[in-house]
Amino acid sequence: MRNTIDSKNWWTLPTGPRNDICDVAGLRVGNHDLRGDVVCTGVTAILPHEGDLFRQPVPAGVAVLNGFGKSAGLMQLAELGQIETPILLTNTFAVGSCSNALIRRAISANPAIGRGTSTVNPLVLECNDGTVNDIQALAVTEDHAQAAIDACGCDFAQGTVGAGSGMKTFGYAGGLGSASRRVVLPGGEGFGLGALVLSNFGQQSTLRVFGQQVPPPGQVGDVPDKGSIIIILATDAPMDARQVTRMARRSAAALGRLGSHIGHQSGDIALAFTTSNRIGCGGPDTQTVTRLNEDRMDAFFTATVEAVEEAILNALWHGVPHQGYDGSMLPSFRDRMTDFYRN
Amino acid sequence: MRNTIDSKNWWTLPTGPRNDICDVAGLRVGNHDLRGDVVCTGVTAILPHEGDLFRQPVPAGVAVLNGFGKSAGLMQLAELGQIETPILLTNTFAVGSCSNALIRRAISANPAIGRGTSTVNPLVLECNDGTVNDIQALAVTEDHAQAAIDACGCDFAQGTVGAGSGMKTFGYAGGLGSASRRVVLPGGEGFGLGALVLSNFGQQSTLRVFGQQVPPPGQVGDVPDKGSIIIILATDAPMDARQVTRMARRSAAALGRLGSHIGHQSGDIALAFTTSNRIGCGGPDTQTVTRLNEDRMDAFFTATVEAVEEAILNALWHGVPHQGYDGSMLPSFRDRMTDFYRN
Amino acid sequence: MRNTIDSKNWWTLPTGPRNDICDVAGLRVGNHDLRGDVVCTGVTAILPHEGDLFRQPVPAGVAVLNGFGKSAGLMQLAELGQIETPILLTNTFAVGSCSNALIRRAISANPAIGRGTSTVNPLVLECNDGTVNDIQALAVTEDHAQAAIDACGCDFAQGTVGAGSGMKTFGYAGGLGSASRRVVLPGGEGFGLGALVLSNFGQQSTLRVFGQQVPPPGQVGDVPDKGSIIIILATDAPMDARQVTRMARRSAAALGRLGSHIGHQSGDIALAFTTSNRIGCGGPDTQTVTRLNEDRMDAFFTATVEAVEEAILNALWHGVPHQGYDGSMLPSFRDRMTDFYRN
Amino acid sequence: MRNTIDSKNWWTLPTGPRNDICDVAGLRVGNHDLRGDVVCTGVTAILPHEGDLFRQPVPAGVAVLNGFGKSAGLMQLAELGQIETPILLTNTFAVGSCSNALIRRAISANPAIGRGTSTVNPLVLECNDGTVNDIQALAVTEDHAQAAIDACGCDFAQGTVGAGSGMKTFGYAGGLGSASRRVVLPGGEGFGLGALVLSNFGQQSTLRVFGQQVPPPGQVGDVPDKGSIIIILATDAPMDARQVTRMARRSAAALGRLGSHIGHQSGDIALAFTTSNRIGCGGPDTQTVTRLNEDRMDAFFTATVEAVEEAILNALWHGVPHQGYDGSMLPSFRDRMTDFYRN
Repeated sequence: MRNTIDSKNWWTLPTGPRNDICDVAGLRVGNHDLRGDVVCTGVTAILPHEGDLFRQPVPAGVAVLNGFGKSAGLMQLAELGQIETPILLTNTFAVGSCSNALIRRAISANPAIGRGTSTVNPLVLECNDGTVNDIQALAVTEDHAQAAIDACGCDFAQGTVGAGSGMKTFGYAGGLGSASRRVVLPGGEGFGLGALVLSNFGQQSTLRVFGQQVPPPGQVGDVPDKGSIIIILATDAPMDARQVTRMARRSAAALGRLGSHIGHQSGDIALAFTTSNRIGCGGPDTQTVTRLNEDRMDAFFTATVEAVEEAILNALWHGVPHQGYDGSMLPSFRDRMTDFYRN
Repeated sequence: MRNTIDSKNWWTLPTGPRNDICDVAGLRVGNHDLRGDVVCTGVTAILPHEGDLFRQPVPAGVAVLNGFGKSAGLMQLAELGQIETPILLTNTFAVGSCSNALIRRAISANPAIGRGTSTVNPLVLECNDGTVNDIQALAVTEDHAQAAIDACGCDFAQGTVGAGSGMKTFGYAGGLGSASRRVVLPGGEGFGLGALVLSNFGQQSTLRVFGQQVPPPGQVGDVPDKGSIIIILATDAPMDARQVTRMARRSAAALGRLGSHIGHQSGDIALAFTTSNRIGCGGPDTQTVTRLNEDRMDAFFTATVEAVEEAILNALWHGVPHQGYDGSMLPSFRDRMTDFYRN
Repeated sequence: MRNTIDSKNWWTLPTGPRNDICDVAGLRVGNHDLRGDVVCTGVTAILPHEGDLFRQPVPAGVAVLNGFGKSAGLMQLAELGQIETPILLTNTFAVGSCSNALIRRAISANPAIGRGTSTVNPLVLECNDGTVNDIQALAVTEDHAQAAIDACGCDFAQGTVGAGSGMKTFGYAGGLGSASRRVVLPGGEGFGLGALVLSNFGQQSTLRVFGQQVPPPGQVGDVPDKGSIIIILATDAPMDARQVTRMARRSAAALGRLGSHIGHQSGDIALAFTTSNRIGCGGPDTQTVTRLNEDRMDAFFTATVEAVEEAILNALWHGVPHQGYDGSMLPSFRDRMTDFYRN
Repeated sequence: MRNTIDSKNWWTLPTGPRNDICDVAGLRVGNHDLRGDVVCTGVTAILPHEGDLFRQPVPAGVAVLNGFGKSAGLMQLAELGQIETPILLTNTFAVGSCSNALIRRAISANPAIGRGTSTVNPLVLECNDGTVNDIQALAVTEDHAQAAIDACGCDFAQGTVGAGSGMKTFGYAGGLGSASRRVVLPGGEGFGLGALVLSNFGQQSTLRVFGQQVPPPGQVGDVPDKGSIIIILATDAPMDARQVTRMARRSAAALGRLGSHIGHQSGDIALAFTTSNRIGCGGPDTQTVTRLNEDRMDAFFTATVEAVEEAILNALWHGVPHQGYDGSMLPSFRDRMTDFYRN
């Protein structure tokens, strides 16, 4: 975004080198797309680190900004403050298949699951891509979920790809976006914070980009917001579950900056984790962890708001226009912005 | 229970005519069992009323006593305060298949779901029956879920049936139980409250029945509590979502009365709903509902504690001994009680 | 605000006739100021309706956006979903005195309190005005609290008055502000929503007014945000406690629009209530209430975001510059805006 | 209790050497009593450690079992996961005065509070002693609160003393009680857990002692439960705020074991803290803390249930009969138990 629209000192913190969530070392993202006559959907996988998450869970927390959603795995995540599987993003009716895929994958790597040990908590978050995709097809299979995990790497596409394939943001095509920020603490140590969004929310006439309204086309009806947004926040700063949860709650401010009122029908979920403090349940009676001085949280709150806002704009920027399931066309935000500045 | 063991005035409220959750008029329960070489599991369905729940949702709330669990649908239930599908109970790794079954069933009755209207929020709760059932088989299919719904009626078996097939309670065979209480308010009007539990928790040596320890066998090792319990509460009293949620939270007292400390690995979830105030989202701008005078809640709190406690005892009483997946035998609570009183 | 700065279609909903919280019929607001050598503080009272709140409580809910605060009364408000005393706003160390004043006032009107009936739940919210006021003086007495209640009417001053006397917002003088919106539902019925804020948050360099940065002076240091904001939302639309709570949670979007990241040290509390459905605990076993169709909530969410944002701007606009306790001067936002547009 | 009534292996864990909360090293408790014509109330102070809590806060969490209560300080405690003042227990209408006392005490030790630094979060919990004490007298002053803090030591009285002076438990005189348990972990290290309760809840006819009903007198009316209970849990085991919060939630099981249904009008609050990991906000960017392996939590959950149950019984046991404000007599539990076993 930064090279194409004047952001007028809108943001204050530097981005990481890639300006996406993979600036958090070890984290990988993978997309798998499904395309067909009435199918336009997909799966996006996020691997928090390179190891086995069931044996080395990461501290995590969740903020439910609005709970009109069907994500799986959040209750246990909140209780234990940890993530123990890859994170899958997909459409609303694919949660079951993606959960099963995560269960089978975890069993395959840890054959004692559900026999000798406890079971495993699959983590799947979703938005409804029913405008573009025929969600009633229940087209996503366990194999598709596995393919997204297999595709994980440090380079990933944004916009109308993966779980974002059929999503729309403020009435424009585009669903998957990412950005990052760099925080340097008073003591000199630096940490990264990355955001990845599955964005499917917003009403076109309310969108503000860097505080400016992007004039709506007029010819297109301004559909009320009935969508959702999933926000994934990752950091390599040492935090505990309570601290990353506080970070997740700041995402609401980013939605407000773009013009959202956090709609009634929205499943607006922010999930945050740190790749530090990977502590399994086995081992000795007590464990030593490092956590951020609470007085240093503000920098990460600012980073959260900025990275989430830019990740959503990036989802918009990379969206490729496509036809809705009902025949209507979802326009390109990039084209609109060009028109906007030309006129 | 009441005829076989002296309950010593343990309870104070009368039961309903059936002493199970079907004392709430219109509510139906159905079981479907799966049995095989390594498979001993099932599905239990609860239909809150005889109509279409997507068009006529019921007010509901949830209390997460301990969140080590994988249930689906609770986040949206808490946000909107309503249930919009049947409730399915099953094993931990069958949540995905049961969710898909509920989605397909709702679409079949409401073809606009996910196209013209919002999506649907499947409600599936679970315990881990991995001691008796090979949960890694992922044996439950969508057809099995549908079969449980089709089996719904006012008569249902308890103990080692349906979702309770492979469950154990305080080390004994038995998972599905139910009980009810009758509340008469000062003004003379009477209401029912029913509890149904999927019980898979508890350590044998800590069990108290009517305040008395049931001596453990000695020859069987006293396995630490790693299980869960799902508690379903239904009433026909007019309440709103906040009120039924308050009721759900009282379930913790019932667990304490039986000797549980609400274990770390337990997914202890209490879900409560009322069959009154069935109001869909369509219709006029405002809606009239009837709710209980808040000062009358205490009677329903007492009813909750008593019905949940007795439902768990009934799950125990009706359990048929069977062999665990690892070859060990889960004993019969009824046999134990007979021995106990004989000696 | 609207006559003095071009708001560029920033808002979408019409204001009420007064554009303050007293557009909700029956609601009154009163200020009492304390001024002295080192004292610059006060109390603001809000009377939700003209009757006795202990006998006729109103449905209410609270959203804790960030819990670094010392407000009294919120736990019971969340449990019972109701307000049963006037609402007092004041400085952090005056919560005790104001609580005592509310207790004595309730006893005076209801002599059975704490003897025959239950006790009463005083509701006092606060921000730290320690930059301008010597908060260690604990200068607010019960009489001052009573004076604010006695001053209640439909006309009230904004800016550096009442509880806002010593507050600062985004580094400018000003703490008390209000605004309102009008919502007309599809069926034709109209309702009001009013916001009143005690605003003491924000970092000057991050402020955005209608999406534009207001250039900071340069000569004044840009102090990090360590403040708080109390947001009071009132409506005459028929809602239940769950619905007004959902409304309160939308306040976070308004904070984001103005440039806040919801600071670590902030007590950011949004309290919402409706003046309809005034139902006491006495009376018959069941009660009839009217509630909004859930599908109509979006309009109230938009109204919330707009009214809260404008209330904060109004607190800024009406602020009179004054000297901080440490000798520094808090500038006037209105002067800054004039400079801004002149240059 | 253990020497006077046969507890039938009711408990499983050993007590600490004192069997009260002062078994947690460094923790001290102090009572101050108020007695007068119509006044029978008091204050109980708990000092978590010997140092300055504002500079060395301790990790803490809270579980609101039922929120019909007026305690101060819990919102910030939940947000930051820490306690930064002594804990005061008192009657419902003394919260304001006790808060003010804590504020003044913190300022006295830390003159920068509210000027250079943030303010301080006073922690005051309460029950309504209005049956015995004329709570409308608002008799407790800041000096009384200070006196309770000054009285702190390792020896403290239980029953009808301090904040428990006017309380009643299951219809008997007695409000302050304490007990402790010892937990030894697999690795051999041992930790203490102590409970102290301000108990003012319960209906006489529902009380169960070691699973047995204590027959009610018959001549005394069986008043419905309208009271509350405050539960303070302390441990020296290294935990973080999330872990002590999980511990606090188990208190509900203890209430159930004694026969409570957690009444509608009850403010049932459990607050837990650890004396380890005393980390202030100053200092370096990151901090190292030790926390319990999550798999070891079960032993502390059992210890919580047992210590809370026994603390309540001890509050009963030490209660001295006295006359209620309305002339009625609150009987002695100890006398009742003697009668019970004699007959």
